Amino acid sequence: MNQSDRVQDLLDRRDIEDVILRYCRGIDRMDRSLIRSCYHHDATDHHGSFSGTVDEFLDWVFGLLARYTHSQHFVGNVLIEVEGDVAVAETYGIAFHRSEEDKPYLNLMTGFRYLDRFERREDGWRIATRTAVTEWSRVDDLAGRWETPEGLLTGRRDRGDALYALLSGLHEED
Amino acid sequence: MNQSDRVQDLLDRRDIEDVILRYCRGIDRMDRSLIRSCYHHDATDHHGSFSGTVDEFLDWVFGLLARYTHSQHFVGNVLIEVEGDVAVAETYGIAFHRSEEDKPYLNLMTGFRYLDRFERREDGWRIATRTAVTEWSRVDDLAGRWETPEGLLTGRRDRGDALYALLSGLHEED
Amino acid sequence: MNQSDRVQDLLDRRDIEDVILRYCRGIDRMDRSLIRSCYHHDATDHHGSFSGTVDEFLDWVFGLLARYTHSQHFVGNVLIEVEGDVAVAETYGIAFHRSEEDKPYLNLMTGFRYLDRFERREDGWRIATRTAVTEWSRVDDLAGRWETPEGLLTGRRDRGDALYALLSGLHEED
Repeated sequence: MNQSDRVQDLLDRRDIEDVILRYCRGIDRMDRSLIRSCYHHDATDHHGSFSGTVDEFLDWVFGLLARYTHSQHFVGNVLIEVEGDVAVAETYGIAFHRSEEDKPYLNLMTGFRYLDRFERREDGWRIATRTAVTEWSRVDDLAGRWETPEGLLTGRRDRGDALYALLSGLHEED
Repeated sequence: MNQSDRVQDLLDRRDIEDVILRYCRGIDRMDRSLIRSCYHHDATDHHGSFSGTVDEFLDWVFGLLARYTHSQHFVGNVLIEVEGDVAVAETYGIAFHRSEEDKPYLNLMTGFRYLDRFERREDGWRIATRTAVTEWSRVDDLAGRWETPEGLLTGRRDRGDALYALLSGLHEED
Repeated sequence: MNQSDRVQDLLDRRDIEDVILRYCRGIDRMDRSLIRSCYHHDATDHHGSFSGTVDEFLDWVFGLLARYTHSQHFVGNVLIEVEGDVAVAETYGIAFHRSEEDKPYLNLMTGFRYLDRFERREDGWRIATRTAVTEWSRVDDLAGRWETPEGLLTGRRDRGDALYALLSGLHEED
């Protein structure tokens, strides 16, 4: 690749990684339209016991998310290969789920990989198909393990999260 | 954005992400001046039960860090939006704290987010305000859980850490 | 640095980070040639109780990996400094190891850092020396903690992993 192609590759990969990170933000803040914008209109998702269209996926995942009080979809290794208008992205993740209910299956950590086919179309790079692969899962008994921090600012799943005040300050200055 | 603006956006975001990573290195190696250099002179930090200026923050956080024998501030998702000379960065993290003392509260994992307002001034991109949001916290009983590896190279919080020999080799070659 | 040098620095750092991520993919999918390609021919690795050439390292690490049914080498903070044809990369990681055997030491999480000296030679940026530093290690009793998900797609350590079908679709389209 020459220098200019390599810069374009960097820009494409940055766009793709941003989609992956916005997806996580959308899940953890329960922002359905943000998640939806990460996928093409005809995208499919294969996720644990679920397989179907992205709109079916959204119904399914919001049903699951409602069982928890918090989630954090923490991603690390994002390895992307771009070929023209198609790309493959492998993303390593750990999801932390918490509930106020003292039930082990509502308080778990899961290691996973997202295997995504991205396509660049008129509305840019978005997910065409996603497959989530589970690597491991850990369910813990709770007594004395998880603590709800007192007196600390904690994350929220609505527009009251501190993120939104910060972002709205950014855009006011335009 | 045209290509040249998009490249500038990449460079800005790289600079901002570097500041976030240098902050983590500074905390984990207990390098006060490195942490200080991540903030503008008049920056503020809102961090757990603490809220104040960056210099007050440094006093507070070094008091906390002294209670542990190791820390690792592991960050993943870094989602940055730049608007001119202001940027908002949301960073997901997990902090691991370890002590040789067999006390649960000195051996904990915490999931958090850093919500940063960055500003570009004469000395470049630095944090203007930071808010740390706690997502979850886990305190474990210790027996048979944490191990101090024997015969392995372990991290240090002073210039004896293996990082510094490697970095000094890099700069000698200039 | 002027703009053009800064863009070159971005490209160099992207190449270096890709090597680090390909190494993790190689370890977790047990792809020996992929791991080998991350190192220069005369590279050395200092890794826990092991120290030697990269080929000796491969023999040693494949012996270890065979004891587990899964591994996930999850990396976050990657802080890279490039000086000409040499670079230092510090990478934070957490390794998850799982076995079907109910033995604590086969089911552990380890926090580490890779401290790498990279060199750019005719075949590009590769590792010249790697030192792995252990930060912490956690061995858990198993009952009721780790679960093998049923009915979920799980990761594999051979060409049957879902990654390879996705990648081969990408390259067919060339």
